[in-house]
Amino acid sequence: MKFIHTADWHLGKLVHGIYMTEDQREVLNQFVKLVEEEKPDAVVIAGDLYDRSVPPTDAVELLDEILYKINVELKTPIVAIAGNHDSAERLSFGSSWYRNSHFYLTGKLQNDFQPVRLNGVNFYLVPYAEPGMVRQLLKEETLHSHQEAMKAIIGKIEENLNPNEPNVFVGHASVLGGNTSDSERTLSVGGSGCVSHDLFAPFSYTALGHLHSSDAIKHDKIFYSGSLLKYSFSEAKQRKSVSIVEMNEDGTFQVRYHSLTPKQDMRELEGHLEELLDPSFYEKEKVDDYLKITLHDEGALIDPINKLRQVYPNVLHLERKILLTDMEKKQSYSVKREEKKSEIDLFEQFYQEMTTAEFTVEKKGVMADVIEKVLVEEVQK
Amino acid sequence: MKFIHTADWHLGKLVHGIYMTEDQREVLNQFVKLVEEEKPDAVVIAGDLYDRSVPPTDAVELLDEILYKINVELKTPIVAIAGNHDSAERLSFGSSWYRNSHFYLTGKLQNDFQPVRLNGVNFYLVPYAEPGMVRQLLKEETLHSHQEAMKAIIGKIEENLNPNEPNVFVGHASVLGGNTSDSERTLSVGGSGCVSHDLFAPFSYTALGHLHSSDAIKHDKIFYSGSLLKYSFSEAKQRKSVSIVEMNEDGTFQVRYHSLTPKQDMRELEGHLEELLDPSFYEKEKVDDYLKITLHDEGALIDPINKLRQVYPNVLHLERKILLTDMEKKQSYSVKREEKKSEIDLFEQFYQEMTTAEFTVEKKGVMADVIEKVLVEEVQK
Repeated sequence: MKFIHTADWHLGKLVHGIYMTEDQREVLNQFVKLVEEEKPDAVVIAGDLYDRSVPPTDAVELLDEILYKINVELKTPIVAIAGNHDSAERLSFGSSWYRNSHFYLTGKLQNDFQPVRLNGVNFYLVPYAEPGMVRQLLKEETLHSHQEAMKAIIGKIEENLNPNEPNVFVGHASVLGGNTSDSERTLSVGGSGCVSHDLFAPFSYTALGHLHSSDAIKHDKIFYSGSLLKYSFSEAKQRKSVSIVEMNEDGTFQVRYHSLTPKQDMRELEGHLEELLDPSFYEKEKVDDYLKITLHDEGALIDPINKLRQVYPNVLHLERKILLTDMEKKQSYSVKREEKKSEIDLFEQFYQEMTTAEFTVEKKGVMADVIEKVLVEEVQK
Repeated sequence: MKFIHTADWHLGKLVHGIYMTEDQREVLNQFVKLVEEEKPDAVVIAGDLYDRSVPPTDAVELLDEILYKINVELKTPIVAIAGNHDSAERLSFGSSWYRNSHFYLTGKLQNDFQPVRLNGVNFYLVPYAEPGMVRQLLKEETLHSHQEAMKAIIGKIEENLNPNEPNVFVGHASVLGGNTSDSERTLSVGGSGCVSHDLFAPFSYTALGHLHSSDAIKHDKIFYSGSLLKYSFSEAKQRKSVSIVEMNEDGTFQVRYHSLTPKQDMRELEGHLEELLDPSFYEKEKVDDYLKITLHDEGALIDPINKLRQVYPNVLHLERKILLTDMEKKQSYSVKREEKKSEIDLFEQFYQEMTTAEFTVEKKGVMADVIEKVLVEEVQK
């Protein structure tokens, strides 16, 4: 039995103010072509089909078009779940009709842990759910963390799981050992969003979404496919692919990776302004790529962003890095503070990522008091 | 061939700040029961399934549930189009899959005017579309009004229409002769939103949505089913129903009306405060109904709304009407100005209905200038 594992399409995503829809269309068309060539028995999409609960209409049309090509035109079964970016209810609309053509979409977690059986393999579909929702659904008052919720869900699955058959878990979670990047929205503060890998021991293959790199976990039976595209510069060095899994009757399997190549890559470029604007340099570059540029120049520069955009039209982020000069080597000096950040700075950063409001001096004062109180209490313990 | 014609469900609608979802669920369950009893060959929904392009999630779940019962459980074909309140693109998602189970949903107008054929009857599905969209789709530069757009669409349909078969037009428009109520959102200013009835002459039956009363037009072949519920007090005196149409092979038909009864009616009540609060009066009343109360009292009243709500918990609107006293009969006097409104007053009312912003003195000044200019130009013509 062969299936292709993908996740984190994030249709409708804006990256630094730019809609990725056309880039997503390009790569998804490559994906459809791969399905046509590989003829898998199923396509597994492990959550975050959309980037938000109400995606823009062109993202809605793109998803409809791509899934139709895969499922109806290429007659390939689809197994898909909602991620934390999807609206479980909105994504669920119509799913009862889709099942007739072997498109199995689970938006909302249901208290029915029956697998979807395709060519002898059982797929257990567990969409993203907040612990509170799982607590309500299973009526288990003690569930508070993602770890506890996932343990309870897998406990339910195990009640009827046949360990002699190949069983695939399809989920959307942060499994311990993974590295997060900027574009994976924080699930919970303080690590309680994580789930430990040993919970997934009953499954032959665990197909995950949520972390955007296929390197996020090193495990022989638990895998992230990685996202469809690079969605932040912290992912610039990742290679994006989908996983082609060929599963044997005893649950053992082989995995191959198939790269997807966007029209425009997302990458970082460093150097002096003059260097970057030198034709002998940029003629060898793919100047249309989405770029984060770090300038090494010291002192004032006149309108560097517009100069750069004349050569590199898609500069999305520009920053300056003051290098140490020989004279100053002993006095560590840098615009980018690399030392350990204070609690209040960390909170400020968190606040700005999570809200659109300004972190005013008043708010900073309140928070500083709270932090001081906590630190004093910790010292006193 | 028997079909039931309904329209304007407006799922997710807020009326005076109250979500109608539970009332809609109640009435839709009656509708499902009717479908079960009548066993029609199709259910026709002529637009405005939702009240807005992004409806609340419980409205999404309700629509999914009701359509599933009708289409999958009761195996009844559904023919449905988007209205001006629906998002054509969002509603369209998945429609390619629905067709397999005879659920024909047209969200976006397509340049393909083939009918859906059910039991010998051709259904032409024409969702709501702005004239500009029709202009683009048909590549006809001269289309500017709804009248012109509809004429062009019906022209396209007629190219392949067989007049010897029964043909049903399913549309969402304001057909001339109809009366608008407060809850039918204005399509265009100045009457250009209307379409004349003679355009529909090629059809045996025209199943319309948009106007909320089945009395909106008196025509032997053009019908509004009316909305699912009363959605404004201007609809208080309407009787809401769905139309059961039995069509013969020659396109002639009989229509029956089936009333839908909400848990709580929407109606108007008038009188003096003391009268309305008198048990001998309200004991005969359905006090839970959604009410607009008009008080006849003169002079100051202390907190009438809270006194009334102790008896009538769902007073949605309260107003005072000063009646003419015998003494004052000659000097016409009323809190509700009934005389013809000035252009600026009409615009102010329109602005307040269409936006959430205040119509400030500055805005009023700008608009007054514009109106004066237009009026002067008209006089000069």
